Amino acid sequence: MKPLPDALLATIGQGVQLIDTPSLVVDLDAMERNIQRMADFARKHRVRWRPHAKMHKSAEIALLLQQAGARGHCVQKVAEAEALAAGGVVDLYISNQVLAATKLLRVARLAAQLTARGGRLAIAVDSEEGIARLAEAMDVAGSADGIHVFVEIDVGQGRCGVPPGAPALALAQSVARHARLRFAGLQAYQGSAQHLVSAAERREAITAAVRAAEHTRARITQAGLAVPLVTGSGTGTLVHEAASGVFGELQAGSFLFMDADYARNEREPAQPSFEQALFVKTQVISVCDSHAVCDAGHKSHAIDSGLPTVALLPPERALRYANGGDEHGLLYADAPQARLPALGRMLWLVPGHCDPTVNLHDFLIGVRGGLATGVVERIIRVDARGALA
Amino acid sequence: MKPLPDALLATIGQGVQLIDTPSLVVDLDAMERNIQRMADFARKHRVRWRPHAKMHKSAEIALLLQQAGARGHCVQKVAEAEALAAGGVVDLYISNQVLAATKLLRVARLAAQLTARGGRLAIAVDSEEGIARLAEAMDVAGSADGIHVFVEIDVGQGRCGVPPGAPALALAQSVARHARLRFAGLQAYQGSAQHLVSAAERREAITAAVRAAEHTRARITQAGLAVPLVTGSGTGTLVHEAASGVFGELQAGSFLFMDADYARNEREPAQPSFEQALFVKTQVISVCDSHAVCDAGHKSHAIDSGLPTVALLPPERALRYANGGDEHGLLYADAPQARLPALGRMLWLVPGHCDPTVNLHDFLIGVRGGLATGVVERIIRVDARGALA
Repeated sequence: MKPLPDALLATIGQGVQLIDTPSLVVDLDAMERNIQRMADFARKHRVRWRPHAKMHKSAEIALLLQQAGARGHCVQKVAEAEALAAGGVVDLYISNQVLAATKLLRVARLAAQLTARGGRLAIAVDSEEGIARLAEAMDVAGSADGIHVFVEIDVGQGRCGVPPGAPALALAQSVARHARLRFAGLQAYQGSAQHLVSAAERREAITAAVRAAEHTRARITQAGLAVPLVTGSGTGTLVHEAASGVFGELQAGSFLFMDADYARNEREPAQPSFEQALFVKTQVISVCDSHAVCDAGHKSHAIDSGLPTVALLPPERALRYANGGDEHGLLYADAPQARLPALGRMLWLVPGHCDPTVNLHDFLIGVRGGLATGVVERIIRVDARGALA
Repeated sequence: MKPLPDALLATIGQGVQLIDTPSLVVDLDAMERNIQRMADFARKHRVRWRPHAKMHKSAEIALLLQQAGARGHCVQKVAEAEALAAGGVVDLYISNQVLAATKLLRVARLAAQLTARGGRLAIAVDSEEGIARLAEAMDVAGSADGIHVFVEIDVGQGRCGVPPGAPALALAQSVARHARLRFAGLQAYQGSAQHLVSAAERREAITAAVRAAEHTRARITQAGLAVPLVTGSGTGTLVHEAASGVFGELQAGSFLFMDADYARNEREPAQPSFEQALFVKTQVISVCDSHAVCDAGHKSHAIDSGLPTVALLPPERALRYANGGDEHGLLYADAPQARLPALGRMLWLVPGHCDPTVNLHDFLIGVRGGLATGVVERIIRVDARGALA
């Protein structure tokens, strides 16, 4: 584990103004309000929530979510599951396809470990070969309790998953034939709907996804196989899956921190009002007549969903962040009353996309009492940073 | 230090086919040929080379480059300098602006350490305030030997740096007034020229940059101050800076690994023929009628300079990589004789941009004997991964 950034960037008890830059800062008050809103939402809709840990990648945060009512956690990678399990998380679902024999042996080993610790491991499949390889690994490991298996259907994203209906039924039946695989239901995530700008488009996409999941569930049930759960959804569309009567579990993860991309999209009225809780603190290191330069570039924040915005400024004095490369950001004062920030000034950026931004940092610096006058309360390790395999 | 990926992804002596995915693999033969080409080029043009370690971030590689003739290393961040110094590198240049008092104290401390180890530390400045703060930190540290200081001029990139001519002279004179700051010359990097597609545009941009640097050097010299060195350049334009008679040192770093963005640009005839040495190994984890899905998304490779290309396939059977999100890539068989790859197949991607791609990984897996039948020879730690501050 790297000790350096911990000591260098911030110290617990220190004022927020002393946090070094560039660094990833969490407004703990805002994060906790987001957790409460999500817990209330799930309770009201009588739906489970299994937040996606591919976003925060931290066992400490996973355990916080669990205390608030989350029913286990999703991950995308075997190494993420292992990192969270090492940090005390015992109910995990790898909501992704795993094909490599070495990884599947790790999956089988982890399934046995988590079961022994009173938890469980689940995984998704979308092919006969995937099922056969998983079953083989489970047989080699010889675990008695087996593993929970979701069949992934493509409900409109066009990425992984078999088509809804008959192909999913065939896979569910294959899962059910293996003694160590337990058919757990359907994985039905419409990922591309999360970031559609208009609320109407998102509603339309999820209406189609719900119909596909419902139809597939009926096909499997008619064939005599119980479908214990339909799981999916994300922060952009959870209102619709929660109200569907088909989805029993929500996988939303971004609600915890939010990002500039979600902020740009039209809000669904019924959506809980999640607030921005994740920021990159940055310092102005160069100023000239036309622009200022800050010390956060795309090694500090991901730009796959757009550039960051500059937070905490009124619209008439807004600063525009432009791409300055790996280590720099360019700041322009386009707004009517905007002025270029002074050399040395600290600014707060809202990253374009929270998940891959967190993955660039070894630590999250948790601040209590706001970004203006708050204090560093905890430094949270990003346990699964870089856990790709 | 994270021990996990080391053990999980590859073992020294193992065949290349057993490297787990997604992982960052270096073709050591290709890398060594690139180093030799760069060393030959610098010798022929009688110019020093100080490769930019912001790209590889590894002390082990920095020492390899040094053995081949590199005269020290550039970095962009104080934490990068500290990580390389901890790995045995003693001649370092922070080619960037540093304004924070805490960081400048670290700079002062590192300068004293490197001098004591027979090396040296240099840094760039582009403001009176930057110079005053650096001088103060050096005085607090009380180091007798001081620090080498380059004045950064903006030679066309429009990022950091003062305008060429009089403003640079004023800063050089300010540097010279401080006992512990040694004026070392001019930092003149035209970063935006590196990625211009046409060779003619790159030549034009560097012609202007050379003129600006030459004029500024003359102004400072006429004022009675020696300008020991003009330093700058990158892999895309080094032919021009090397031939300029003005630049005494080349900072190119990407030549070592190369990337898809450099490969897309028109090659300058005099440019050494650097070859691709950096690859993301990935596995196909899902296949349907229209596309295949691999396990490498933009948490495995940076997409700021475009998506990766699929390597080692003849043009008529080329596969097109499309964005599948944080953890997935979509593969399409558009080419006339292309076929979708089978489930489980291993593929090799050429990242769009080498620097931020390396920064996503804790280890580089070094392969000897090629990607088809080679063997893992060494696993290289990315010492400064995430060293942002």
